Amino acid sequence: MEKEASSRLEWRINVPDGTSKALEPETGVAGEIWVGLKGFMGGIVLRVWRALEKAWNIGVADPRTVIHGVKVALALTVVSLFYYVRPLSDNFGGNNAIWAVMTVVVVFEYTVGATLSKCINRVIGSFLAGALAVGVHWVAEQSGDQFKPIILGISVFLLASGATFSRFIPSVKARFDYGAMIFILTFSLVSVSGYRVVELLELADQRLSTVAIGTSMCILVTMLFCPVWAGCELHRLVHQNIEKLADSLDECLSEYLKENTSGQEDLNKKKLGYKCVLNSKGAEESMANFARWEPRHGRFKFRHPWKQYLKIGASLRDCAYCIEALNGCISSETKAKTMADKKMQAPPFLRKHFSDKCMKVRSYLISVLKELAMSIMKMQKPSKIDCKVAEMNFAVGELQDSLKSLPPHLIASTGEESNDTKTMVKEGGGHPGRIMMVLPLVTVVSLLAEIAVRIGGVVDAVEELARLAEFKPAKGGKPQAKPNYVRTYFRKSRSDHV
Amino acid sequence: MEKEASSRLEWRINVPDGTSKALEPETGVAGEIWVGLKGFMGGIVLRVWRALEKAWNIGVADPRTVIHGVKVALALTVVSLFYYVRPLSDNFGGNNAIWAVMTVVVVFEYTVGATLSKCINRVIGSFLAGALAVGVHWVAEQSGDQFKPIILGISVFLLASGATFSRFIPSVKARFDYGAMIFILTFSLVSVSGYRVVELLELADQRLSTVAIGTSMCILVTMLFCPVWAGCELHRLVHQNIEKLADSLDECLSEYLKENTSGQEDLNKKKLGYKCVLNSKGAEESMANFARWEPRHGRFKFRHPWKQYLKIGASLRDCAYCIEALNGCISSETKAKTMADKKMQAPPFLRKHFSDKCMKVRSYLISVLKELAMSIMKMQKPSKIDCKVAEMNFAVGELQDSLKSLPPHLIASTGEESNDTKTMVKEGGGHPGRIMMVLPLVTVVSLLAEIAVRIGGVVDAVEELARLAEFKPAKGGKPQAKPNYVRTYFRKSRSDHV
Repeated sequence: MEKEASSRLEWRINVPDGTSKALEPETGVAGEIWVGLKGFMGGIVLRVWRALEKAWNIGVADPRTVIHGVKVALALTVVSLFYYVRPLSDNFGGNNAIWAVMTVVVVFEYTVGATLSKCINRVIGSFLAGALAVGVHWVAEQSGDQFKPIILGISVFLLASGATFSRFIPSVKARFDYGAMIFILTFSLVSVSGYRVVELLELADQRLSTVAIGTSMCILVTMLFCPVWAGCELHRLVHQNIEKLADSLDECLSEYLKENTSGQEDLNKKKLGYKCVLNSKGAEESMANFARWEPRHGRFKFRHPWKQYLKIGASLRDCAYCIEALNGCISSETKAKTMADKKMQAPPFLRKHFSDKCMKVRSYLISVLKELAMSIMKMQKPSKIDCKVAEMNFAVGELQDSLKSLPPHLIASTGEESNDTKTMVKEGGGHPGRIMMVLPLVTVVSLLAEIAVRIGGVVDAVEELARLAEFKPAKGGKPQAKPNYVRTYFRKSRSDHV
Repeated sequence: MEKEASSRLEWRINVPDGTSKALEPETGVAGEIWVGLKGFMGGIVLRVWRALEKAWNIGVADPRTVIHGVKVALALTVVSLFYYVRPLSDNFGGNNAIWAVMTVVVVFEYTVGATLSKCINRVIGSFLAGALAVGVHWVAEQSGDQFKPIILGISVFLLASGATFSRFIPSVKARFDYGAMIFILTFSLVSVSGYRVVELLELADQRLSTVAIGTSMCILVTMLFCPVWAGCELHRLVHQNIEKLADSLDECLSEYLKENTSGQEDLNKKKLGYKCVLNSKGAEESMANFARWEPRHGRFKFRHPWKQYLKIGASLRDCAYCIEALNGCISSETKAKTMADKKMQAPPFLRKHFSDKCMKVRSYLISVLKELAMSIMKMQKPSKIDCKVAEMNFAVGELQDSLKSLPPHLIASTGEESNDTKTMVKEGGGHPGRIMMVLPLVTVVSLLAEIAVRIGGVVDAVEELARLAEFKPAKGGKPQAKPNYVRTYFRKSRSDHV
């Protein structure tokens, strides 16, 4: 102890019993706790800071989220203060205001359609359940005090199990899920309340007025201040998805053809746009469901064919699956390049052979998609689409033909060869390796043909939408005359590449 | 009138004023209404009947939905009768029982995890909001009657907008969405109540006990009677998805190779199993979210790596995209056959050439998937998987090699030809058409190779799960010795087909 002490500075304290004790430096237990606490607090502060930063980014990316928060708060504050300043006189305790507040909190959703759907569900569910409950109550009252709890219990049990089960039926789940819950809630509340029928009717009258105030407050605020229409959002989502598909097809093929692997993050983000399309099924379905409840707004009528948007979405996803496979094949090839597995990869001179045709196909595919996106955005009939589809199919046919008429010396070793191929053939061990060089190209070409077919499906779906929603004809009047070859080609094109 | 009357049987009635009136037959207005009403009622009865039939089918397909209905009704009836039979004495009107009933209705969900998540959210949200509201209330009380509504209004506004906005943050939305709503609700209710702080504390005490009764009732019923664990469901879903992928790959390739187009609906259903995989992302995510709240149950520990299931699901979807593309290419070819577009289609003798190799690849792909499914179902380490993956990659390599070493006379017209090809070449117009015959085969082969690569991704994800969840080693002890070629092949296999 003395030896250790001599080697370092030490604080000693004289204790009343005559001995002296060494004061442990603060790296003892207390110190450790302090350091731990500091780390803990620091961690919390850091976490809170990061969460705030994330929230800020979300708010900046879409300011409507912030506006939504303000809208809910506005409706809630108005209702709260209304009841706070002049409490309604009632005989059943001061619990009427809570129904107005609760309605606002529970019913107010991001889109107008969702809010309306919940309001209507709430009103209908409450009304049905209330009427039924009063009826059952009356029957129970007539049958004496002894049977009353039994009748009430059985009715609650039967209706609750039935209504809960009904929420598993898809059509009920999609539209009346909330209504079924409110039905169970109201029925049980009325049953358990223990009031007499006369009192119940009075209570129902009062509650109806509070719920009406809450509901109308929600509807007013959601529709008047920066409304977010589910239909509008769905329309925009589908339009954006078409553009994303066009962009990722563009990037994907540019990368393959130009081989500009200059690693731009922005391009990569564009290229992976099809992933958004793959994952947007759920959002589309819920928005289409809510859009049905919305009144006429902007360019959309009350019975706008929202279901057709789901069909367009499905056909877009069909395209996206193919683009995913194409992307996989192309990036396999790109990786193979770095792994010196040269045999697997199409040689540059072959690529050049196809580069022009592929570029042409690419530009037509994209032009069809862009035309569709434009048609949806402007809500105009896609006037030039027939022509563009025909051109697209023609270009795909040409690409396939050019693969068909590939110079035979590129496949079998019968003709003269460039130096480039000679060395490759030597490496590959004679001409059997030759067809291998064409493999990736063949796959890309047939996937492109498949994508063209599926884009045809998108065209059909969009044209059906234009018909159902009565899109205006495009400005510039009559559809242009088509060149003759296009017309004849178009007639067989759909079946040709199926 | 007389003429008309003579031609048909007529009922006449003597009216007191001496004349007689013809009784109109019931096909008049009343009759039409009656017929319309009958049709309307018939339509309603038919609709109700169909809905009942649909509900019956749902109940038969999954009896747990019916059981869930009974469970909810049971919890609700018990709570209702409890409060009905012995109403708690309270000073704030008879509105305490409603909180127990409301808790049961709102909180009871299909899976244990979802119920627990809602319960915990409700309790934490209520507690935080209640404490904060009492604090704000106290401050407001201190600052006099004039400022009280202003302070309360501002606090409701700020907290409600903040909490509503926070529901847009993905991590909050996934886990605490319901808690945020309850926070707003409780805070506003307490603020609007107008009670003094002392009264509030008493109210909180009572309400806590009712909510506790409702919550514990829910948890007891959901966990004791036929519990549906979200974790278990997720586990089963992933297992089923792997099997579905194997089945649809099987059917898809059998159809292509054997050409048995005997139109079995059952087979077609199996073939389209991959569509379920494509659409199961949402279900997987919500179940993984709920599973985190569940305690130890069955074979799953408290901190089972549920997130890893999402990764397996993602890799399965990657496979499914490729199978979708493969299916598209194959059915394009099948359709082309019927449309007499023979050029596009691989000729039968070429198919025979590849049939064996393809069958081999198919069986290996499926055997790997089945092994993975078995491993997940039994929760055992996939012991033979390395060997099987190696065999799979070897078979894919062989298939690619056999395409590489395709006899040159099949591609270019240098060798002797079978009669079969001669006629085809004539139709196709000389040898340039020759490579066209191989096109569909090439695409199928390269998509198969891509699928093999992606199945490799699934294998990795499942192995990671086995490591994280500490799966038992398979019975039969040590992994079998691998044949030599397999081992060397396996070493390069992963990079070979990337």
